[in-house]
Amino acid sequence: MLNSCRHFIDTSEFSKEELMDIIDLSLALKRCLKSGYVPPLLPDKTLAMIFQQSSTRTRVSFETAMTQLGGHAQYLGPGMIQLGGHETIEDTGKVLSNLVDIVMARVVEHETLLKLAENSTIPIINGMSDYNHPTQEIGDMCTIKENLPYGKVLEDCKVVFVGDATQVCASLAMITTKLGMKFVQYGPKGHLLQDSPSAACIEQLKKNCATSGGSFTITDNIEAVKGADFIYTDVWYGLYENETPKEERIETFKDFQVNRELMELGNLGCKFMHCLPASRGEEVTDEVIDSNISLCWQQAGNRLTAIRGILVYLTRGSFEVGDAV
Amino acid sequence: MLNSCRHFIDTSEFSKEELMDIIDLSLALKRCLKSGYVPPLLPDKTLAMIFQQSSTRTRVSFETAMTQLGGHAQYLGPGMIQLGGHETIEDTGKVLSNLVDIVMARVVEHETLLKLAENSTIPIINGMSDYNHPTQEIGDMCTIKENLPYGKVLEDCKVVFVGDATQVCASLAMITTKLGMKFVQYGPKGHLLQDSPSAACIEQLKKNCATSGGSFTITDNIEAVKGADFIYTDVWYGLYENETPKEERIETFKDFQVNRELMELGNLGCKFMHCLPASRGEEVTDEVIDSNISLCWQQAGNRLTAIRGILVYLTRGSFEVGDAV
Amino acid sequence: MLNSCRHFIDTSEFSKEELMDIIDLSLALKRCLKSGYVPPLLPDKTLAMIFQQSSTRTRVSFETAMTQLGGHAQYLGPGMIQLGGHETIEDTGKVLSNLVDIVMARVVEHETLLKLAENSTIPIINGMSDYNHPTQEIGDMCTIKENLPYGKVLEDCKVVFVGDATQVCASLAMITTKLGMKFVQYGPKGHLLQDSPSAACIEQLKKNCATSGGSFTITDNIEAVKGADFIYTDVWYGLYENETPKEERIETFKDFQVNRELMELGNLGCKFMHCLPASRGEEVTDEVIDSNISLCWQQAGNRLTAIRGILVYLTRGSFEVGDAV
Repeated sequence: MLNSCRHFIDTSEFSKEELMDIIDLSLALKRCLKSGYVPPLLPDKTLAMIFQQSSTRTRVSFETAMTQLGGHAQYLGPGMIQLGGHETIEDTGKVLSNLVDIVMARVVEHETLLKLAENSTIPIINGMSDYNHPTQEIGDMCTIKENLPYGKVLEDCKVVFVGDATQVCASLAMITTKLGMKFVQYGPKGHLLQDSPSAACIEQLKKNCATSGGSFTITDNIEAVKGADFIYTDVWYGLYENETPKEERIETFKDFQVNRELMELGNLGCKFMHCLPASRGEEVTDEVIDSNISLCWQQAGNRLTAIRGILVYLTRGSFEVGDAV
Repeated sequence: MLNSCRHFIDTSEFSKEELMDIIDLSLALKRCLKSGYVPPLLPDKTLAMIFQQSSTRTRVSFETAMTQLGGHAQYLGPGMIQLGGHETIEDTGKVLSNLVDIVMARVVEHETLLKLAENSTIPIINGMSDYNHPTQEIGDMCTIKENLPYGKVLEDCKVVFVGDATQVCASLAMITTKLGMKFVQYGPKGHLLQDSPSAACIEQLKKNCATSGGSFTITDNIEAVKGADFIYTDVWYGLYENETPKEERIETFKDFQVNRELMELGNLGCKFMHCLPASRGEEVTDEVIDSNISLCWQQAGNRLTAIRGILVYLTRGSFEVGDAV
Repeated sequence: MLNSCRHFIDTSEFSKEELMDIIDLSLALKRCLKSGYVPPLLPDKTLAMIFQQSSTRTRVSFETAMTQLGGHAQYLGPGMIQLGGHETIEDTGKVLSNLVDIVMARVVEHETLLKLAENSTIPIINGMSDYNHPTQEIGDMCTIKENLPYGKVLEDCKVVFVGDATQVCASLAMITTKLGMKFVQYGPKGHLLQDSPSAACIEQLKKNCATSGGSFTITDNIEAVKGADFIYTDVWYGLYENETPKEERIETFKDFQVNRELMELGNLGCKFMHCLPASRGEEVTDEVIDSNISLCWQQAGNRLTAIRGILVYLTRGSFEVGDAV
């Protein structure tokens, strides 16, 4: 371990209080910008963005955030640098520590992030791996905080993820249980969290609930959707290296579409969420995604909100009480 | 229609007065920069640049312009985001409206721009489509204004485009007729504006002339070149998805080369223009392009001039009289 | 020749005094940044980075340097613009001179840089060619200056390059002889400088030594390693378009590994250098590269140090005595 700095790779490494600090900081900075004040908190600083896979929201959000904070983000796209090719991941970590101020990486294998972090003296941010997607977690909690059901606090909310146990599903499970909320995955047998590349998170979910008072349910029983405050979904295919054919996956998930009927199982005022991109007419109907209960566009905007907050928290956030941000 | 903001997709949607404002603003900002004053008119602002095809001049100009204005341009190149692939164009428009401040797009099909604009709450700028190339139009008018023949005003000038009815040809026709100038396309039969993907512009040319007092002539008769103040050309091949073989196209256009003889048909002092890149020895001889009647390098520089002006006009230009720029 | 500006293509075009100025300026700016002062010496300026081959260190260093200096670097990667394709190199040089402030290019053929420089009115920087790698030279001299053996000055040092006569080897030979140091290439017959694409540099080495009092030795005799203050190496394969198979090259170079035994031939305190990326277990053992005599990570950081200095020197450095930087 070379470093003493803090990375943002897994929300499990942060306490509930720390995560709430990041969420509140993110929302405070959002209000600053809305009011026209853009605090240059990262002047002249450089973020290296390593993408082993292409991305729209994550890439654009990080690059916009760095510009707004007075710095700059470098796009190191697929094939542009050889992470783990010509050069070992460890050596790339050491080199980048000498050339930039922060690194974000979207990686094929979560292990790559861990190796990078172990060999870097600067903060490493997880821009999604096969295991989790923690910047999405913070953004989604910002969106939920901005849309709390009347009279409820965060801990009262029930969040239901419908469909395959993607890394977004695992991430949603991790942050909601950490914060003391009620989490449900409702999906087909064989595609539940315990069957997924993120299966290892289940132990963490138990720990989270023991500490926070939250709960989690993983089931193929539609009854579990009842009383949802937020219903969340993700695409059905195009997710894994060696997945079964598209037609087969559509067949598997076709009864797990988020449509008017499913939404009506939730509480009155239940909101729809989606990490995007969406395949309209598949995991969600046009009627739902385009309605005013759909939060997905606000979620997209809060990717930027969260990433800006995380960048500031990691580079300037380890201050004592009394310091100015 | 989500939006109330102004896009820059087709100069037909602007009045002559508005276009002259944009041209004058562009030239004023150019003088500011030459004198060392760089007004940070877009501080911390982000432009997303979507390229469905590669580009040198347009891309470099937009990125330099944003830096000069205090903001930043993100390069979203071919394959980097899935515009109209995994995600519908409409959804990408909604998402980007939440993550950046302005969007420019170079697209394969003009329709893509229209859909993007319809679903965006931020300004969309056309960086060239199969139909037109309006930032080129503004830049070319800046170049012509800087090189008016002695004693002439813009409306007195005759501009002759030689060769295929490319989108640059169509754009030149649209802006010159809008501003009340005399436009000629001199090209081979079967490759005139009415035969091209931009054929729909002909109705617009008629409307433009009716309002402005300008004129347009589309012909394969070399007589029409006489009296030109500006002779403009573009490449002969490599323009369309399913075009005929290079050799066949060279055969078609070989009598439409801009050389000393052709230039001599123009007025004394007639200038040469080219949107670049040029295929030397084909559509233009080295002698002409490298002579001091060649404006093509100045035109290249005025791509930046125009784009800087358009960016400022769209984001800050909709002000009342009395506002400071 | 269009231009009166200075390019940075070959250190042979600079005097020893000028090169020492660049090295000292680079190290002074490094100290500024370490102390928290980031002088915005290139505010709003744009650097175009043309890469005909991919790169990690060079690309990241240029982009970070421009951000730190208050400007911006545009990444024009392989295939993004057609340098010498659709458009001649000469024309691209003329166009970029109108759209950006500085250009750096990593090229396949050195000739491309020369043509670009001849047709540009703005500074062109060599980001590596098949002939040399001059920004690496300046960075390496910064590293050596920061690690001079006790009681020695630069001119006292012996630098041994072990392995193939790559462009990094040639560049190291050129800068060390220019500055009056002792240079050795120790490599297998058939892979010495006279056999390489950089063979033309040998005449320059002779001239350099005649002026500076330095020396150079090119040999396959291990005796020449003795007394080294710095031992430098580079990878064994993956360097040339049509090189022999990897296995064959490993066989050729296997006795030229930098390991504990080889390092012990150097002076007490002899340091290890590598331009990176490294193929661990091939040209260098883990033991050596990971030891505290290894300067390679500091070298990587000094790529940024040097590039920042070169950028400032070229654009602001041609001042009279008495001017402020």
